Amino acid sequence: MAMNRRDFTLTSMAALGAVATQGTLASDTKTNRRIVLASRPIGKPTVDNFRIEAAPIPSLTDGQILLKTRYLSLDPYMRGRMNAGDSYAARVELNDVMVGGTVSEVADSRNPTFKRGDLVSSYSGWQEYQVSDGSGIRALDPRIQPPSYALGVLGMPGLTAYVGLLDIGEPKPGETVVLAASTGAVGSVVGQIAKLKGCRVIGIAGAKAKCDYAVDELGYDACISHYDDDMAEQLAALCPDGIDVYFENVGGSSWEAVMPLLNTFARVPVCGLIAHYNETELPPGPDRMSMLQGMILTKSIKMQGFIVSNYFNRLPDFVQDMSGWVAQGKVKYKEDMVTGLDKAPEAFLGLFSGNNFGKLVVKVS
Amino acid sequence: MAMNRRDFTLTSMAALGAVATQGTLASDTKTNRRIVLASRPIGKPTVDNFRIEAAPIPSLTDGQILLKTRYLSLDPYMRGRMNAGDSYAARVELNDVMVGGTVSEVADSRNPTFKRGDLVSSYSGWQEYQVSDGSGIRALDPRIQPPSYALGVLGMPGLTAYVGLLDIGEPKPGETVVLAASTGAVGSVVGQIAKLKGCRVIGIAGAKAKCDYAVDELGYDACISHYDDDMAEQLAALCPDGIDVYFENVGGSSWEAVMPLLNTFARVPVCGLIAHYNETELPPGPDRMSMLQGMILTKSIKMQGFIVSNYFNRLPDFVQDMSGWVAQGKVKYKEDMVTGLDKAPEAFLGLFSGNNFGKLVVKVS
Repeated sequence: MAMNRRDFTLTSMAALGAVATQGTLASDTKTNRRIVLASRPIGKPTVDNFRIEAAPIPSLTDGQILLKTRYLSLDPYMRGRMNAGDSYAARVELNDVMVGGTVSEVADSRNPTFKRGDLVSSYSGWQEYQVSDGSGIRALDPRIQPPSYALGVLGMPGLTAYVGLLDIGEPKPGETVVLAASTGAVGSVVGQIAKLKGCRVIGIAGAKAKCDYAVDELGYDACISHYDDDMAEQLAALCPDGIDVYFENVGGSSWEAVMPLLNTFARVPVCGLIAHYNETELPPGPDRMSMLQGMILTKSIKMQGFIVSNYFNRLPDFVQDMSGWVAQGKVKYKEDMVTGLDKAPEAFLGLFSGNNFGKLVVKVS
Repeated sequence: MAMNRRDFTLTSMAALGAVATQGTLASDTKTNRRIVLASRPIGKPTVDNFRIEAAPIPSLTDGQILLKTRYLSLDPYMRGRMNAGDSYAARVELNDVMVGGTVSEVADSRNPTFKRGDLVSSYSGWQEYQVSDGSGIRALDPRIQPPSYALGVLGMPGLTAYVGLLDIGEPKPGETVVLAASTGAVGSVVGQIAKLKGCRVIGIAGAKAKCDYAVDELGYDACISHYDDDMAEQLAALCPDGIDVYFENVGGSSWEAVMPLLNTFARVPVCGLIAHYNETELPPGPDRMSMLQGMILTKSIKMQGFIVSNYFNRLPDFVQDMSGWVAQGKVKYKEDMVTGLDKAPEAFLGLFSGNNFGKLVVKVS
């Protein structure tokens, strides 16, 4: 199976290599344009780690469907998939299509469950077409409007925020909740749910426009910038009663500022560590690992990692709650929409510099 | 209040200093012998950090009782109370009596709730007598036999093991549970409850006699020694399916051996870090704090600190379960009994070298 896949890739590379390197392949229904992992990054990824190529679309056999990608989600977790070691999910093999959640249209079907024109939630990755046997493909819930929201507030990032905050963070009214990347796809939902639950919410973001948005639009009590040298002092001043929940999406300087302010019984859902994803070696000493253990001990802190794919049993509650909150304007959502599959690598790299403002989505077709 | 106490101490120090330094005070009902914190340790404590002294026993006023200490518990957490900074509980002030759980007899009473001769569970500290208004004093549950067990398997260490393993560790039948200090007051109970819950239990201890005891008497599947250079390799060989629950009582080399073996969804109740209590500075780098965070993230690990005093709501279940298990011989318990209050400092220091074998208790009277 792996051998077949590699053979196919090598064949298509040979046939299309010259065109692919120019990145100017024509898009048509006979050919699938796709972006593969060309090499593994060392540290920060570059556009050279990706390669756009074309491949023929195989004919469908019984039970299969042809999915045409409408929207592709770009998310920080994809950085982990580019490494040789397995992260919390399997790595992407070299020359394989980059993984990613998608909203797709059924372009052709030989499967009785799906008919042409259906919109579905899929995991087709960075490509225009995918042939699928239908496993793992779900019809889009009609409450999800517009459909691209299935990649954000009403999809994986929204569910991540929902279970991470509610099931692990267990916020109580009046408590102080702090989050970094606080206007991002996950963070913006975490902060707004925390407000709905009666918490005081302090965000950390980068650009001033994002901080303003967090307060003016998302309703946070305050939002500070990690560009400020005195971020730690600002955070301390804004948290006179300490921090009860820190939704960890970032690590790095945000975590350093949060750590001394954590209260006894604080909860730290660990959802991501984007500040560390491109690190090639650990920082110099001293070794503070035992210090962190000691803090967990003496403050009765709960620190718990999670990945959304283990919480799909919460989908019914989530869609019910979140579609209502979005429809009522209680949870606001901002998309950063990029047009064209070929823009995906550069847009993805921008995630690590905070270039995006809102949930990063590629409009593929 | 603090000033009064200090004045009193200074007076008694002046009056009794010469005798106290020889440690040969006579014990009688007119005088309270007690051990106070003479100085704060830097790194490993020594006997010079303690001072034994005598003080008059004040007459009782209405509502008060006089407690005569029968048994004093010595536990690792007391090391944290000797520091200037607050640990998870308040520090002991210089020249104050060292804190500690006790089983005491009511020697005199002007409180209608208690009568002379009652056995109670108290927190009288390292002294022969305490005058109390009865708050926090509980009559000893008659199911606790012999009474000194109230300081161990049927008291604070037992409850620590019970809530740490069951409420935070959440062991499931067939899972692998690893614990260090595995024949100690807490560890021996953790391991035996884990066996009762159908787990595979691997202990870590020091001396060979303790390892043998863990397997032959406590029923662990295996027990290895942290004195062995190849402990990490031994542990890996004994955990072919990884580790699901690590009850953290120690830190240090045990944690280093456990860390790479933790499974996805592993639970790490953090109960103690005795290997680090005497450290005066952090070890050299690299700084692995973010590595630990990354492991918590990618393996969906729950690491949670706790202190038994926040779980007193579990006492009824605990006493019911544990007194039954002890009576039926399902949970075995070993005491390391030292006689005489003046032996307390040296016995306490031995905890950090693994000198004790079983729960360390001082028979005071």
